[in-house]
Amino acid sequence: MRIGVLGTGVVGQAVASRLAELGHDVVMGAREAGSERATEWAAGHRGRAGTFATAAGHGELVVNATSGVASLVALEAAGRDRLAGKVLLDLANPLDFSRGFPPCLAVVNTDSLGELIQRTFPEVRVVKALNMVNCEVMVHPEQVPGEHTTFMAGEDGAAKELVAALLRELGWRDIVDLGGISAARGMEMYVVFWVQTRMALGTSTFNVQLRRAG
Amino acid sequence: MRIGVLGTGVVGQAVASRLAELGHDVVMGAREAGSERATEWAAGHRGRAGTFATAAGHGELVVNATSGVASLVALEAAGRDRLAGKVLLDLANPLDFSRGFPPCLAVVNTDSLGELIQRTFPEVRVVKALNMVNCEVMVHPEQVPGEHTTFMAGEDGAAKELVAALLRELGWRDIVDLGGISAARGMEMYVVFWVQTRMALGTSTFNVQLRRAG
Repeated sequence: MRIGVLGTGVVGQAVASRLAELGHDVVMGAREAGSERATEWAAGHRGRAGTFATAAGHGELVVNATSGVASLVALEAAGRDRLAGKVLLDLANPLDFSRGFPPCLAVVNTDSLGELIQRTFPEVRVVKALNMVNCEVMVHPEQVPGEHTTFMAGEDGAAKELVAALLRELGWRDIVDLGGISAARGMEMYVVFWVQTRMALGTSTFNVQLRRAG
Repeated sequence: MRIGVLGTGVVGQAVASRLAELGHDVVMGAREAGSERATEWAAGHRGRAGTFATAAGHGELVVNATSGVASLVALEAAGRDRLAGKVLLDLANPLDFSRGFPPCLAVVNTDSLGELIQRTFPEVRVVKALNMVNCEVMVHPEQVPGEHTTFMAGEDGAAKELVAALLRELGWRDIVDLGGISAARGMEMYVVFWVQTRMALGTSTFNVQLRRAG
């Protein structure tokens, strides 16, 4: 599949690398043309580098791996027209480090980044997923021992099926659909719990298994 | 152990009943003397009914099972002097239903109910625990299939040991200490995720198992 990954940071690199390794046709999009990080990434992987706009134009599926507090600006730069009708896998968290560590959330409680993106870009098929684990676990769930669960939310059923298929390619087995995009709220608020658990455990290699009847 | 349970609602009833069944000496405290619910509860169980103040005075350990948005007022009524030095097991969530369902949180992101209680009553040894599951699961964790995890947070190590012992009596096996009371923030924010998962699953009988190396 043609995939555009928006973001050249640790998360974007991990996701783009694994998707390219799985045989997808990946363009990593950076804020500016000629980004050193995107260019280096492309040289080391079977992928190409470009701007947010290049990546958005390329992808049948576009991954939002930008910093959550910069995502709306990045998506605006990617281009409303280029994104229209496409599936946007939003794995960003609106982490706000302005008060130090641990971070709080810039959008929270009565709204979420996922909802904000869907409202701002109504023609995009937003699926919130993978934001509840570290980026290494996102693409290598087998690093966490035992069975564990990943969650997703979005308005568009076909878009969620596409994302679920991609999640299975990454190795995810237990995929729980939480419903419409408003469920992004809980998925993002969970991340504050995740950060505290990470501090207590001293590792990012963990996740939860949803235990329920049936 | 002498335990005071503050709150006569569904959560207070579930917790008080189970603790009495386990042989603890329980007083259920209500906002007003002669509360019908507390009196009925006491008649049906090996326990006694009283006011918040009676329950707080009675307990070596006091359980905050009041509505999260009313907890500070309830604790003030319970009496600062009666609570001083005691362990307060805070299982309340600051759920705000004023915007309808699903609820948002009245204290969130840069603060939490657990922290607010600890700041307001510095002489109380607050332990946040059990707020991340339904009240039936709190006291009957075996209702959820498989291994699963419960979390706690607080400043006082001895208080957390006492609460952990009580959790083990209730049947909890995997108890994770998240650290100081500031971790209550993530534990309470998790509840928004819990509510959305509850809506998606159609049952309250679920929990998560923390999967980590080691």
